[in-house]
Amino acid sequence: MAEGFAIGLDFGSNSVRAVVVDVADGREVASAVVDYRRGEAGILLDPTDPELARQHPRDYLDCMTDAVRNALANAASDRSFDASKVIGFGVDTTGSTPLPVDANGLALGLKPEFENELAALAWLWKDHTAHNEAGEITKIAGEHRPAYLAKCGGRYSSEWFWAKMLKCARTAPGVFAASHSWVEIADWIPATLTGNTSLSAMRRGVCAAGHKAFYNDAWGGYPDETFLAKLHPELARIRRSLPEKAYNISDRAGELSNEWAGRFGLKTGIPVAIGAFDAHLGAVGAGIGDGTLVKVMGTSTCDIMVSPTSRDLVDVPGLCGIVKESVLPGFYGLEAGQSAVGDIFNWFVQRIEPGGVEEGSHARLTERASKLKPGASGLLALDWHNGNRTVLVDQRLTGLMLGMTLYSTPAEMYRALVEATAFGARVIVERFEEYGVAVKQVINCGGIAARNPMVMQIYADVLNRPMAIAKGLQTCALGSAIAGAVVAGAKGGGYDDFNGAMKAMAGVQPHVYKPDPTAATIYERLFRVYRRLHDAFGIAGHGADLSMLMKELLAIRDEVA
Amino acid sequence: MAEGFAIGLDFGSNSVRAVVVDVADGREVASAVVDYRRGEAGILLDPTDPELARQHPRDYLDCMTDAVRNALANAASDRSFDASKVIGFGVDTTGSTPLPVDANGLALGLKPEFENELAALAWLWKDHTAHNEAGEITKIAGEHRPAYLAKCGGRYSSEWFWAKMLKCARTAPGVFAASHSWVEIADWIPATLTGNTSLSAMRRGVCAAGHKAFYNDAWGGYPDETFLAKLHPELARIRRSLPEKAYNISDRAGELSNEWAGRFGLKTGIPVAIGAFDAHLGAVGAGIGDGTLVKVMGTSTCDIMVSPTSRDLVDVPGLCGIVKESVLPGFYGLEAGQSAVGDIFNWFVQRIEPGGVEEGSHARLTERASKLKPGASGLLALDWHNGNRTVLVDQRLTGLMLGMTLYSTPAEMYRALVEATAFGARVIVERFEEYGVAVKQVINCGGIAARNPMVMQIYADVLNRPMAIAKGLQTCALGSAIAGAVVAGAKGGGYDDFNGAMKAMAGVQPHVYKPDPTAATIYERLFRVYRRLHDAFGIAGHGADLSMLMKELLAIRDEVA
Repeated sequence: MAEGFAIGLDFGSNSVRAVVVDVADGREVASAVVDYRRGEAGILLDPTDPELARQHPRDYLDCMTDAVRNALANAASDRSFDASKVIGFGVDTTGSTPLPVDANGLALGLKPEFENELAALAWLWKDHTAHNEAGEITKIAGEHRPAYLAKCGGRYSSEWFWAKMLKCARTAPGVFAASHSWVEIADWIPATLTGNTSLSAMRRGVCAAGHKAFYNDAWGGYPDETFLAKLHPELARIRRSLPEKAYNISDRAGELSNEWAGRFGLKTGIPVAIGAFDAHLGAVGAGIGDGTLVKVMGTSTCDIMVSPTSRDLVDVPGLCGIVKESVLPGFYGLEAGQSAVGDIFNWFVQRIEPGGVEEGSHARLTERASKLKPGASGLLALDWHNGNRTVLVDQRLTGLMLGMTLYSTPAEMYRALVEATAFGARVIVERFEEYGVAVKQVINCGGIAARNPMVMQIYADVLNRPMAIAKGLQTCALGSAIAGAVVAGAKGGGYDDFNGAMKAMAGVQPHVYKPDPTAATIYERLFRVYRRLHDAFGIAGHGADLSMLMKELLAIRDEVA
Repeated sequence: MAEGFAIGLDFGSNSVRAVVVDVADGREVASAVVDYRRGEAGILLDPTDPELARQHPRDYLDCMTDAVRNALANAASDRSFDASKVIGFGVDTTGSTPLPVDANGLALGLKPEFENELAALAWLWKDHTAHNEAGEITKIAGEHRPAYLAKCGGRYSSEWFWAKMLKCARTAPGVFAASHSWVEIADWIPATLTGNTSLSAMRRGVCAAGHKAFYNDAWGGYPDETFLAKLHPELARIRRSLPEKAYNISDRAGELSNEWAGRFGLKTGIPVAIGAFDAHLGAVGAGIGDGTLVKVMGTSTCDIMVSPTSRDLVDVPGLCGIVKESVLPGFYGLEAGQSAVGDIFNWFVQRIEPGGVEEGSHARLTERASKLKPGASGLLALDWHNGNRTVLVDQRLTGLMLGMTLYSTPAEMYRALVEATAFGARVIVERFEEYGVAVKQVINCGGIAARNPMVMQIYADVLNRPMAIAKGLQTCALGSAIAGAVVAGAKGGGYDDFNGAMKAMAGVQPHVYKPDPTAATIYERLFRVYRRLHDAFGIAGHGADLSMLMKELLAIRDEVA
């Protein structure tokens, strides 16, 4: 019988969260969130370049310290809790969010000479400055290493590891020359917590490596130096700093160092699991398994599935990645996603702010939008405000809305944006199924899933499938805690495998959103319009007659009215 | 030497304006505006049908009475003015805005039994309820009377006379049965002022008849009964209520009746010119002539040119109408237009209200948008929020915006909407020139032209032509006053022809907006993107590869930055 508490650390786009979880049943005993302090909502921007988004490693460390301390302080009010019963740590982060480090694994941004140098900080996942470099990697990989591309959807993204490094090598050569290696923050945080930061001691996770850094057992791990040298001679040097093997989350990154144990007020030696991306551990926190799609809905969305390694699996075009054991040992992990979901709603509320602060709030817009019938506005949007991650894998796409009349309202536009993300979600589900990965259940997690019934009902209606909601509100952090319980092992008070850990600690809420047949029929027609727009604007050479689209939307509007 | 004062009456979408003009030099001595009292900004709406827009004839009469009285009262402070020196009236109105009348020419809406019946009121130009009927008229005219269609751009509009009547006959047969005829308010106001309301005495203008009611000398005036009976048997009855001949604005509708003279405090017998649509008299007020395009920019835009009747003129596809003497005697009038211009900006400000009342005002958005460089936002829009009048002649089109990112701002969107209307304006200019009607000068009038330098500079840059501004702020009302001076004749203190009247009374401001070459180069590229969207969404069968459009906008944005 498992006993004790695991701590899950979840590094988001704007804040870091620490949760203290009872390993017996997954109950969240306490949590704390600390917002990053620098930049705009924790993100350092460049007013002259809307594609730039960086974060400061100092923020990660300072805010993590406070988050863990606060969570432990909050946990103290729980009668069963005692700090000595903490048995494991797990870590999830955004990604691909790499940062340059020196030979000791110290982030360059922590050194005085680089602390104000944007190129020396963490390149946040949503930084798209490297779009030209991504195109170049796609081109050169296509010519010389087509197998690399096949595993990441056929197109390398400006959000990813090598593209960002290449951009840095070209535009900030001083920073690049000072970097001995580049590390995903998913790896750098566990390495830092355990003191295993030296490049020889640092363990890297297969989740980040496999999805974003071309790591694959099939070609012996990270990409070869010959290929990297074609991109930039300096990348071959970075390749030599990378280990031969990457680990999955059932492995330890190490044990909590004296330094960090002291800082947190915990004992030394608590095992820390290999880190992974937030969505992958979110899938674990939601209780993923064969046939289950876990949608982690936040500022962006990650859609995760797993498929047993014993089963044949073809490459699925447009998926961000298919990586062995990126989610769970013994399974391929399949990752898809939408580059912006909550971010689009936030853009509308925070940047456009229709009607002012109060009228334009999420609450007011949701209240009004939830009263609208599907199709009644005549509006339709593409959810590409931050590019398209799946299935087009193209950051150089942008938002689109059509159907506006002189009477269109903010609530109608808000609903159209929500619907657009649901249509985008459906494209992904259809792509999975087209390639033989049956989707038998959809579990949603993240703040939007937990808190916005309108969004979830629209998703149920648009996808024409029931939408289950993960029981924990902080599914990613819970997944990290589950990893912490697994690396502790049964002997350490936790579990020996994820199957047992998820069974005890994860699960879904009793209420499931069911599709409404009338709404689903309307959305079926609207989805066809969406799909035509999607293909016309997203696929080169896809000539299409779009002259009926506005009329079709008006026809639907009139029928609904 | 002309001497005296003419009164111009301008019935807009939301208010009626009266101006008192010195006929010697066109100086506006006084004016008054009275807002219609009913509905939303004077327009009666139906919450269940966004396409419906009606006005009450009682508003026209009451507000006209007040406007003339107020204008005369204001004029009294001018030393030279005396009410006994008023020599003529001219009238311009929106259109096609027909209303049903009884045998005495009394508007049905003025009768107690119909005063609250929406179908019995005036069907405002922007009422699009008859879009199915317009399609039917286009189809049947195409089969049986192709010549009719050729004169109105190849497609009959839901905004026009017969479509609205057909819709009424089908959906409000009681109202329709009570109507002895239908009259454009451009004709009904002069008829009412002169007491010539009986169907035998009422004179109708060729401007409204020719553009919207298929009137043409070539086939003997209004369309024949056989054709109309194919649409609806009752329309043939209405045809019999229409006169054989329509008049131009150098003709009199009659003379001011005792009743109205008493109401205004003027003498009986002052000549009242035949009425015309606002834009056509606006063109007169701007001093139109061969080679001059007059753009009347308001909630929508009308683009007017004239071509001497002595010169051969081919039909121009997509133009709303080419009508002999619809603007000036001795010239064909060519009418094009955009279904919404100011209305689109107003929609964004009043319905979306980004950032709240103050932040989302025209003034604040203009202030911010004017600081943006062309192409810098990456946004592009289609100006079809109220359909497309020229060159697509299609009310079943809607707005579109693309290029949104998570950083797009309200000012960027506002500017993109302004630019969209400028691109729409350019499509019209290019269409004129493609068909041999050279555009040598552009004169803009209306409130937007007079008051918004940013809009006019964008128009100069997008059209890559100088933009002149009419000297009078109320160009339509001035044109009406000029017509009043012409029907007075030289003997009556006015002029014997429009040439002399316009020379004395119309003109342009000294400041002309000149295109900026750098901006024009960027807009040349953006216009190509606009044109591809325009054709892809607007023209059936026009398959096109749009996959590069978002990337082109991003490329322009990046180059500009």
